[in-house]
Amino acid sequence: MSLIAELREALGDTGCLTGSAIGEAVRSDASGTGRHLPKALLRPASVAEVSAALAICHRHGQPVVPQGGMTGLAGGANPGTGDVVLSLDRFAGVEEIDARGGTMTVRAGTVLETAQRAAADAGLLLPIDLGARGSCRIGGVIATNAGGLRVIRYGTTRDNVLGLEMVLADGTVLSHLNRAVKDNTGYDLRGLFIGSEGTLGVVTRAVLRLRPRPAAMETALCALPDFDAVLALLERARAGGVVSAFEAMWADYFALNERLAGASLFAETPPFVVLMEMEGALEPVLEAAFADGVVTDALLAQSEREVQAFWDVREGHAMDAALPGLLNFDVSVAAGDMEPFARDCASAVRTLRPDAFVSFFGHVGDGNLHIAVHLPDAGETEVHEVDAIVYGHVRALGGSVSAEHGIGTLKRDWLGHSRSDAELAAMRAIKAALDPAGIMNPGKVI
Amino acid sequence: MSLIAELREALGDTGCLTGSAIGEAVRSDASGTGRHLPKALLRPASVAEVSAALAICHRHGQPVVPQGGMTGLAGGANPGTGDVVLSLDRFAGVEEIDARGGTMTVRAGTVLETAQRAAADAGLLLPIDLGARGSCRIGGVIATNAGGLRVIRYGTTRDNVLGLEMVLADGTVLSHLNRAVKDNTGYDLRGLFIGSEGTLGVVTRAVLRLRPRPAAMETALCALPDFDAVLALLERARAGGVVSAFEAMWADYFALNERLAGASLFAETPPFVVLMEMEGALEPVLEAAFADGVVTDALLAQSEREVQAFWDVREGHAMDAALPGLLNFDVSVAAGDMEPFARDCASAVRTLRPDAFVSFFGHVGDGNLHIAVHLPDAGETEVHEVDAIVYGHVRALGGSVSAEHGIGTLKRDWLGHSRSDAELAAMRAIKAALDPAGIMNPGKVI
Repeated sequence: MSLIAELREALGDTGCLTGSAIGEAVRSDASGTGRHLPKALLRPASVAEVSAALAICHRHGQPVVPQGGMTGLAGGANPGTGDVVLSLDRFAGVEEIDARGGTMTVRAGTVLETAQRAAADAGLLLPIDLGARGSCRIGGVIATNAGGLRVIRYGTTRDNVLGLEMVLADGTVLSHLNRAVKDNTGYDLRGLFIGSEGTLGVVTRAVLRLRPRPAAMETALCALPDFDAVLALLERARAGGVVSAFEAMWADYFALNERLAGASLFAETPPFVVLMEMEGALEPVLEAAFADGVVTDALLAQSEREVQAFWDVREGHAMDAALPGLLNFDVSVAAGDMEPFARDCASAVRTLRPDAFVSFFGHVGDGNLHIAVHLPDAGETEVHEVDAIVYGHVRALGGSVSAEHGIGTLKRDWLGHSRSDAELAAMRAIKAALDPAGIMNPGKVI
Repeated sequence: MSLIAELREALGDTGCLTGSAIGEAVRSDASGTGRHLPKALLRPASVAEVSAALAICHRHGQPVVPQGGMTGLAGGANPGTGDVVLSLDRFAGVEEIDARGGTMTVRAGTVLETAQRAAADAGLLLPIDLGARGSCRIGGVIATNAGGLRVIRYGTTRDNVLGLEMVLADGTVLSHLNRAVKDNTGYDLRGLFIGSEGTLGVVTRAVLRLRPRPAAMETALCALPDFDAVLALLERARAGGVVSAFEAMWADYFALNERLAGASLFAETPPFVVLMEMEGALEPVLEAAFADGVVTDALLAQSEREVQAFWDVREGHAMDAALPGLLNFDVSVAAGDMEPFARDCASAVRTLRPDAFVSFFGHVGDGNLHIAVHLPDAGETEVHEVDAIVYGHVRALGGSVSAEHGIGTLKRDWLGHSRSDAELAAMRAIKAALDPAGIMNPGKVI
């Protein structure tokens, strides 16, 4: 029997689509770099069907590309024409909430926001949160170890997944739906799978940690004279209470997005702006920082609308439309290295192209810096030169070429800037051990 | 050249001890179950020497048992007579503290308490903490993913190690001394090594997370009428502020240790006692709990001496001497399952031996329960029967046979109660990929 005929038999007609039935959305994630329609789109509706589909593909040596909500930014879920795409959109939903134990068991195809709402309905908080919450799916969030807005308070996705069920390339189901924070029973397969971007298998279910809903939060937008002040404010905030967001914006980034949002927040654009959220106790921190010159001006949000207005500037959703072809970088360096890193990067890019727009913003508390670069009408060669500048500076500082977006295909050639040949060889050995036929998302990450 | 001659050449005479020069301490960890003196004790003084020593052993097919401070409870560091022991006690010390970035780079041979003090001297907190702090070493803490007293507040060891340097069986050095909370550059080798109990390689250095020192803590010892009240108090505490310890003791455990400590804390032994610490805000939580009958009596510590007295009862250091041959279990089950688990376990053990002493205590917020069982003059068969009772109940509830102590040799035969054959096969495949000659701590964990 042919591959497609076997898959149809295992998954039914609705579970195995080909040709024009597949739909255009499978071609590319949010990076917009995917071009190809795959050979088939598989939509298994159960763990048993995921297992059966992978066993068939394994037998045929058929490459499989797992897809979630296609909100990734690294090309990690984009298929080639010879690939089969596997989506868990039909295996969705919250299976159980243990309010007492503070856990939620959820299927991989569940949209993040759906899971967040279910937790809220149970009086709890699902702390994993990112801008794409309305369309990203839990499986993809786990496969990419997605970061986002609340890492400073609650940790990464990896820190919030207690148990995991995944299916290996040959269809073997590894189910460890552990619910306890402490679990030292052999190797941490859970942690290894989280962030492996679909190259080791397919996540089917997970046990996520829930937390008490935070006390009322206070939000402020602070103007600061220099980056030392940014670090000093972070230190004070952490000593003064529970910090739930600490987002720094360099002047160029803030000025552009303030304008695009049609807002006018400070009389003059300060050198640095920090969007800070704390659980209570924000005002005393601000007052002390103001007295010491760490903060030169500050706006305390008085309503949900003001909170949203601050976040709109920070999230900068209007940038992509205003600056077509905008290049987005996601790196990490030590907090103390951030300011010189930004200065040197900007200067090197502007030497390459004096008309370049270079702006920085980031989750300073997590060591995570984003860089938005715009070179009007840049060609592929120039884009590569900018990549080389940014990742070269990251390497020199021992930083990470991907803090939260993952490697996918777009950063694969730069992974060696953060990882040694010996580390890449160890990763390849693990990959070969768990996926000997090499069918899981080939060509991605390593 | 012989193995020992090669090792001597690489490590010098002080780095390679044999025979009576080895010393008795290498025979057994704190479980007291080790019997054998190994073939040699290696004490490399640098990463290069660790690498050279492992390369030599790899070439000779020589089994290597890494040792830290020998405070483990699972036999994971105990050698056989044909093994070579590798200790990093000569590769110790804090290399760097980045107070701004909140990280510490530390050598694997450093005693935990030394690292804690260095962090405190820099005005920060190293949140990893366990009873054995004065003798356990960072390498062993990482190899076993040690849990301890502050997991409820700061997470496990795995959550507090940002970067790791380790040496594989063949001497390959994998160095990824990452300092950022967010780092998505390929597979999480760091997390895989943490908790692998020396079976994948040797940890040489680590970057640990530091935190701001907590605000003044308040400590209370609370009497509670039933286990529902224990869970209700935990819920209230978490909603009311930052909980830094929440240790529950069942009546039998509390009564014995209160007596052994020569203390008299409550007029009558309550069904449950909780030692609770919070960063400020403890009194309002207690008052509300008292008003609702969740807490029936409470002692608020008024001095450091009283804090210590509460902890002495909880830590129960006098038990081992009072009850020779005491069996200690370390399991996890969902919070809601803890009370029936304890009841059923105790009843099954007492059916086996009506004179058994069975007591429970644990880190309820982490799902972690410890069981201390004493069968006067028990033989090996009876001990095995108790193991079977406890781990059988864990399996029935989908719990973990090792929450924080690890698997070592003592729990190896029970690992299948928490992990499926497919999971064990995946672990073995990873082991074979990274240690093809099988020299790293053979016979441990899997």
